[in-house]
Amino acid sequence: MERVEESADKIEEVGRVVEQARELQESGASLISKISNDEQFLRQKANSLESSIRRLRSLINSLHSQKLLDSRLANKLEEDLQRARCVITDGDAAVFLPAKAQGRFLRMFLGPINVRASRKDVQLKVKEEYNSYRDRTAFLFLLFPLTLLILRSWIWEGCLPAFPVQLYQAWLLFLYTGLALRENILRANGSDIRPWWIYHHYCAMVMALVSLTWEIKGQPNCAQKQRGVELFLQWAMMQGVAMLLQNRYQRQRLYTRIALGKAKRMDVVWGETSGVDGQLWVLCPILFLMQGFEAYVGLRLLKTAFVGVVSEWQVTFCGIILVLMAVGNFINTVQTLVAKSRFKAKMKRTKSKQELD
Amino acid sequence: MERVEESADKIEEVGRVVEQARELQESGASLISKISNDEQFLRQKANSLESSIRRLRSLINSLHSQKLLDSRLANKLEEDLQRARCVITDGDAAVFLPAKAQGRFLRMFLGPINVRASRKDVQLKVKEEYNSYRDRTAFLFLLFPLTLLILRSWIWEGCLPAFPVQLYQAWLLFLYTGLALRENILRANGSDIRPWWIYHHYCAMVMALVSLTWEIKGQPNCAQKQRGVELFLQWAMMQGVAMLLQNRYQRQRLYTRIALGKAKRMDVVWGETSGVDGQLWVLCPILFLMQGFEAYVGLRLLKTAFVGVVSEWQVTFCGIILVLMAVGNFINTVQTLVAKSRFKAKMKRTKSKQELD
Repeated sequence: MERVEESADKIEEVGRVVEQARELQESGASLISKISNDEQFLRQKANSLESSIRRLRSLINSLHSQKLLDSRLANKLEEDLQRARCVITDGDAAVFLPAKAQGRFLRMFLGPINVRASRKDVQLKVKEEYNSYRDRTAFLFLLFPLTLLILRSWIWEGCLPAFPVQLYQAWLLFLYTGLALRENILRANGSDIRPWWIYHHYCAMVMALVSLTWEIKGQPNCAQKQRGVELFLQWAMMQGVAMLLQNRYQRQRLYTRIALGKAKRMDVVWGETSGVDGQLWVLCPILFLMQGFEAYVGLRLLKTAFVGVVSEWQVTFCGIILVLMAVGNFINTVQTLVAKSRFKAKMKRTKSKQELD
Repeated sequence: MERVEESADKIEEVGRVVEQARELQESGASLISKISNDEQFLRQKANSLESSIRRLRSLINSLHSQKLLDSRLANKLEEDLQRARCVITDGDAAVFLPAKAQGRFLRMFLGPINVRASRKDVQLKVKEEYNSYRDRTAFLFLLFPLTLLILRSWIWEGCLPAFPVQLYQAWLLFLYTGLALRENILRANGSDIRPWWIYHHYCAMVMALVSLTWEIKGQPNCAQKQRGVELFLQWAMMQGVAMLLQNRYQRQRLYTRIALGKAKRMDVVWGETSGVDGQLWVLCPILFLMQGFEAYVGLRLLKTAFVGVVSEWQVTFCGIILVLMAVGNFINTVQTLVAKSRFKAKMKRTKSKQELD
């Protein structure tokens, strides 16, 4: 009797569970379709609002330049529109703006998954983590080649063994792949990172890969054969110092700009050199010095290849890439500086005009 | 007069836009918080339902084994519960089930982003794309080493030049990194892929990386020095054939299982060898043959290293990894086969019992 009762009990409970599963499935489906409708609606609204802002801005500019609108009023309207844009792009509504297309690079490695965070605070967490990753990385970037160079003169008697150098090169490959992936993800999440800094990491990836196939030759004439590796390690160390400085500078500048409401927090401006603080006077010369040294290392490698000390194609290839990277870095830094000084001049003009008025 | 009117018009429109931006921000924020509340609610429900199912299942099993529940009834209840589970895990409610933790591997490359699709149909698209990626890959996997081996005997007179081989190794590194990333993403999206197949790709990544640093020696005695590379290419070709067969088999089997309601569509069972169709009798011997050949290549490499023809550490390392991979593959294939035959035997017993009844 007891057995029958217990069975009946179980049968009933199983039936209940099956029913609940069906209910859950239905409410899940309806929630998902409701969410996607609501989101669609807000997405359309955000889109049309953004294009209105763009249209009004260009209208005001053209009215202003035709002297049909007085300066002070034009500036005020311009500021209002800028603020409206910030409200959309910095707030919760930002996730409803159309995403930048996810590049080929992400698709190649990850397939067609969506890497865009659905909430603004998660996007900011991604950005924060990227910053702290860069900090950790910069530290290793300094420490790794430094250790190699110290061990070289203390223990290895001026001749680097192949394995630690290759380990370092493999680490570089992993590092640059990670950075390129993360920066593409940041871009998909609305960051305004300059495309060059991502291309720069693609170049660095290729170079790390090529350098792995480059035989590290030993005795005899070790110092001469390893001159290229030595220069490369010195350059890497310098880059570590510059990265640490840049990270500090970027973060401060970003926080300042957020406070001023001028920047979206997703801006990544690695190597960009603007701002008001005195650190710029330290950072700028170091950046140019590093770019010069990068080109020098590249040219030295090319020289070694053509003189015939090390005749592998890898040496020529790395030399060319280093020179290209140095030139690209230089052009981008100068472009940023020019844009910034123009912006500053404009601000000054506006201010003095307002004072005159 | 006209000018003043136009200005007034613009001022009004700008004011409207600013107001709209604020509204959009507010409705965005409220939608997001509403969504997260609703999702939280469904998540709790899904969780408790899943644990009810698990509890009932073990209860029924124990009642059945204590002979307190009759066999036919136990089977029916078991089936009902299984169907309830499928409703949850295969339907829209699946996204509300707790996600598997995203592994260290994804975090290392991508940072803390969420790679889980928020809708079941997107998850299935990811899976579909993974399958077609594997198809394309398998084709290249066959073509690339085949081309190298053909060119070797036709044009390069039995001696592979370093560059094409290194290009191939770099491609392998990229391929295995991509596969490992994609499989981790599939896992985060609820796939039941066996961990071994992901570890297998980590091993393959490391091996590709190490083989890049391995100098490809030329004349004299090229054939002897390049024996390892040649064996490796032959093994890679065979793997290409096996991958093509496996892909075909897996897809068919997956569709069959989906039709039978036995599997979640996110299951990836690379190398798993079960099913009802005749293809298994082709696939299984090929898999075992390939594992044997993999171990053979590994042992040959180890022999070359110890006899002293090629004394670099890379040769020993690749040899050991290949042997380990072969052993791991063998164990996992056998485990899967055993699990499958047990399942089949159980099904048979149940069936014959029902017929007896």
